[in-house]
Amino acid sequence: MSSVSKRLLDVPASPIRKLVPLAQAAKKSGVKVYHLNIGDPDIKTPAVMMSVLKNWKIDPIGYSQSQGEPAFLESLKTYYHKIGYPFIDIANIQVTSGGSEGISMALFATCAPGDEVIVFEPFYANYNTYAVVNGVKLVPIRTSITDGFHLPLRSVIEKKIAQKTRAILFCNPNNPTGTVYTKGEIETLVTLAKKHNLFLLSDEVYREYCYDGKKQVSLLSYMKQLPKQAIVLDSMSKRYNLCGVRLGAIVSLNEDLMAGVLRIGQGRLSSGIVDQMIAAKLTEVTPAWMRATHEEWNKRRDVLYEGLKKIAGVTIPKPEGAFYTIVGLPVDDSETFAAWLLTDFRDPSTSSGQAETVMVAPAGGFYATKGLGKNEVRIAYVINQKDLKRCTELLSRALDVYNHR
Amino acid sequence: MSSVSKRLLDVPASPIRKLVPLAQAAKKSGVKVYHLNIGDPDIKTPAVMMSVLKNWKIDPIGYSQSQGEPAFLESLKTYYHKIGYPFIDIANIQVTSGGSEGISMALFATCAPGDEVIVFEPFYANYNTYAVVNGVKLVPIRTSITDGFHLPLRSVIEKKIAQKTRAILFCNPNNPTGTVYTKGEIETLVTLAKKHNLFLLSDEVYREYCYDGKKQVSLLSYMKQLPKQAIVLDSMSKRYNLCGVRLGAIVSLNEDLMAGVLRIGQGRLSSGIVDQMIAAKLTEVTPAWMRATHEEWNKRRDVLYEGLKKIAGVTIPKPEGAFYTIVGLPVDDSETFAAWLLTDFRDPSTSSGQAETVMVAPAGGFYATKGLGKNEVRIAYVINQKDLKRCTELLSRALDVYNHR
Repeated sequence: MSSVSKRLLDVPASPIRKLVPLAQAAKKSGVKVYHLNIGDPDIKTPAVMMSVLKNWKIDPIGYSQSQGEPAFLESLKTYYHKIGYPFIDIANIQVTSGGSEGISMALFATCAPGDEVIVFEPFYANYNTYAVVNGVKLVPIRTSITDGFHLPLRSVIEKKIAQKTRAILFCNPNNPTGTVYTKGEIETLVTLAKKHNLFLLSDEVYREYCYDGKKQVSLLSYMKQLPKQAIVLDSMSKRYNLCGVRLGAIVSLNEDLMAGVLRIGQGRLSSGIVDQMIAAKLTEVTPAWMRATHEEWNKRRDVLYEGLKKIAGVTIPKPEGAFYTIVGLPVDDSETFAAWLLTDFRDPSTSSGQAETVMVAPAGGFYATKGLGKNEVRIAYVINQKDLKRCTELLSRALDVYNHR
Repeated sequence: MSSVSKRLLDVPASPIRKLVPLAQAAKKSGVKVYHLNIGDPDIKTPAVMMSVLKNWKIDPIGYSQSQGEPAFLESLKTYYHKIGYPFIDIANIQVTSGGSEGISMALFATCAPGDEVIVFEPFYANYNTYAVVNGVKLVPIRTSITDGFHLPLRSVIEKKIAQKTRAILFCNPNNPTGTVYTKGEIETLVTLAKKHNLFLLSDEVYREYCYDGKKQVSLLSYMKQLPKQAIVLDSMSKRYNLCGVRLGAIVSLNEDLMAGVLRIGQGRLSSGIVDQMIAAKLTEVTPAWMRATHEEWNKRRDVLYEGLKKIAGVTIPKPEGAFYTIVGLPVDDSETFAAWLLTDFRDPSTSSGQAETVMVAPAGGFYATKGLGKNEVRIAYVINQKDLKRCTELLSRALDVYNHR
C-alpha cells in the first residue's frame, strides 16, 4: 500500500514555523512583521568566524570525518576545559549536524521503541518531532507560569517514573521558558537518575546566557558521578550566533553510547566541513565579545520584561536565562490571536507610517498535554532593543483591539 | 536501566571507514596510502561555487528555511527542468542535509516499524544504517558479478514481495557496483510497483556519470505515471564534487509525503545556509565543466579496468557508471586482505622510494546476506590516472605476495 506511514502523519508541524505563510502574506501586502517567533538572533557572528569564509582554501570541499573535523573537535575540547571540565577528551565528543541531530541520536541511543522519556512541559517543541522520529514516548510533567516554570517537587517527578522510563530530558537554561534551574533542582534529577538508573539528557544550548548573577549548573559537573548516564547536548547556534551553521555536539563518558552514535554518524558520513571550520574558531572568540553579547541579551530581556509586565492581564515571570519567555495573555486562544496579529492587526509606524505587526509562537505546541498553554505564547527576544520596545507597544495595542472587537 | 538501546548496538560500523585506524597507523609510520576505499573525489569544486565563500556577505549566519533556501530550491528546479522534467515544481523538492538524510527520511515516511524494503545486494552499505535507524527491514535480492550486477528476472524480484513490503530501494547508476540499469530493468520495477502498490525509491546521486554512450534512465521519467509512489533521492556531493557540503534532495509528486518530510525538516530547522548558497550556483556550472569531469571519470574508469583485468584471478565487470566497482579477488577473505594491505604490505615508490600501499573497502559490508562478498572489494576510482595506475600495480603485487606468504 503506497500511502505514507502513520508515523509520518504523527510528526507535528512546528508551532514556531506553522504561521510563516500568514507572515509571508502580510509582508507581501506591505506590512512590516517583527519576528519574535523564532530564536534566530540578529547579533553578528564573531568576525574571526566570518573570516574563515573569506580565507577559504580547501578545494574540493570534501567529506569531513564522521566523528567531527579534528580542528573543531580540538576547539570543543579546549572550550570544555576552559569552562571547568578538564576530564572531557575528544573521545567523549561526537559532532552533530545541529543540536537537533544530537537530541535525536541521544533518544535513539537510549531508548527502545515505545520507551518513555520524562520532559517538563512546556518544552522545546521539536522534542516532539525527535520523539516521533525515534518511536519514543514523551511523558510530560507540568511546570507552571506561577512558579516561573521551575521543577516540581521530587516526589511529583518520581511518581512519573515507570517501567518503561529510560531518561529525563531537560533544557537548562530553558527554551521556551527562560528558566535557569537551581543547583537543588539539578541535584534532584541526578539523585533520581541514580536511584532509578535513568539517563539524563541535558540540553545546554544556552549555557552562557543567565542573568541577574545566576550561573547555569551544568550536567557536566555531575558527569563523573554518572559516567554511563549523563549526556550533555550542545549547539553552536546560539552561543556564537551561528544558527545557519548546523553544528552541535553530544558529550558523554559512556563508551558504548559514543561508539554507537559514531556508527550512526558514519552512516551520514560527516557534518559539513565549511561549517566546522567556521565553528573551529570558537577558541578565538574573545571574552570581550562573549561579555558584550551577554550584556545585549540581558538588556533585551529587561526591555521586554519591563514593557510586557505593564500590560493589563499579561503574566510574565522574569526570564532568568536563554532568550525566550512564555507569556500569559488575556486571550482565550493564543493560536487564533497569533494568526489574527498576522492577518488583521496593523499599526502604523509613527516615523514611516508603514503598517506594522508582530509575530509570536502560540505556546500550545510547546506542551504535550492537549489544552495546556492555550492562553500563552512564546516570545524570543532576538531583535534589537528599539524594535523590542516597539513590539511591546504593538502587543499592548493589539490586545486592546482584540479584546474590544 | 541505563545501558544503551539494543537498536544502537544494531547500527553497523561502516565498511568504508572501519579500517581507517589501520590506515592512520600506516601513514604515521611514513607509508603512503592510496585511498580507493571512499568516494571522496579529488576533482576540484567548480570555481563559481568556491567564489561564494570569498564573496560571503550574510552576517549573522542565520537559519535557512526548513524546506530549503529559496535560491537553492530555485536552482534545483531549474536543473530538473533542464534535464527534461519541466513538471517538477518547488513544492516537489525537499532539501536534505546530504543524500543520507533524504534516504533516511524516505524510509521513515514510507514504512512503519518492521516493514520491508527490497534492495539489490551488494548495495550502498549505509542503507543498512538508515534501515536500523528507522526500524525498517531490508530484504536483499542478490545480483551477481558474473552478470555485471544487473537485476534478476521479474519473477525473482516478485517472489520477494510480501505482505510487509512497502518499497523497492535502488541506486542507479549503482554504488557500489558501477552498474547502469537498462530501460527494461527500470520498467520492470515500475511495473512491479504499480501491480503491488509499492513505493520506488531511486537513489540517483550519480545520474550524470554513465560511460560508453550509456544514459541513465531516471525514475523522474516515470514520476507522472506513479505520482504517489515514485521518490527520487538526489545529492550534490558527487555531481559537483561537494561531498563536504552536506546537501541532497527528495523529489516527489506525493503531496502527503512532501508535507510530512517538511515537518521532519522543521524539526531539524534547516540545512546549512552556507552550503546551500554554494550549491545554489549549480545553474552556473558550465556544460564544459560537466563534460570535462565526465571525461576524467571515464578515463579513470578505463585505467582501473585495464589495469585490473590483467591480474590473474581478478574478476571485474566493465563499470558502466558512477565511480565504483566491485572486484572479485583471488583471496579467501577480503577483509583480512584489506587489513593486511594496511598493516603489512609495503611497496617502495620507484621515484621517491617511499613505502606505499592501497586501501580498499571489503565488500562484505555491502551485502545483507552473511558470507556474501567475502572475496570481493569495492574500489572507488576517485584519484588521478597516474595514481590509479600505480594502485593497479600495487594490487597486483600485493595479491602475489599475499598468496605466496
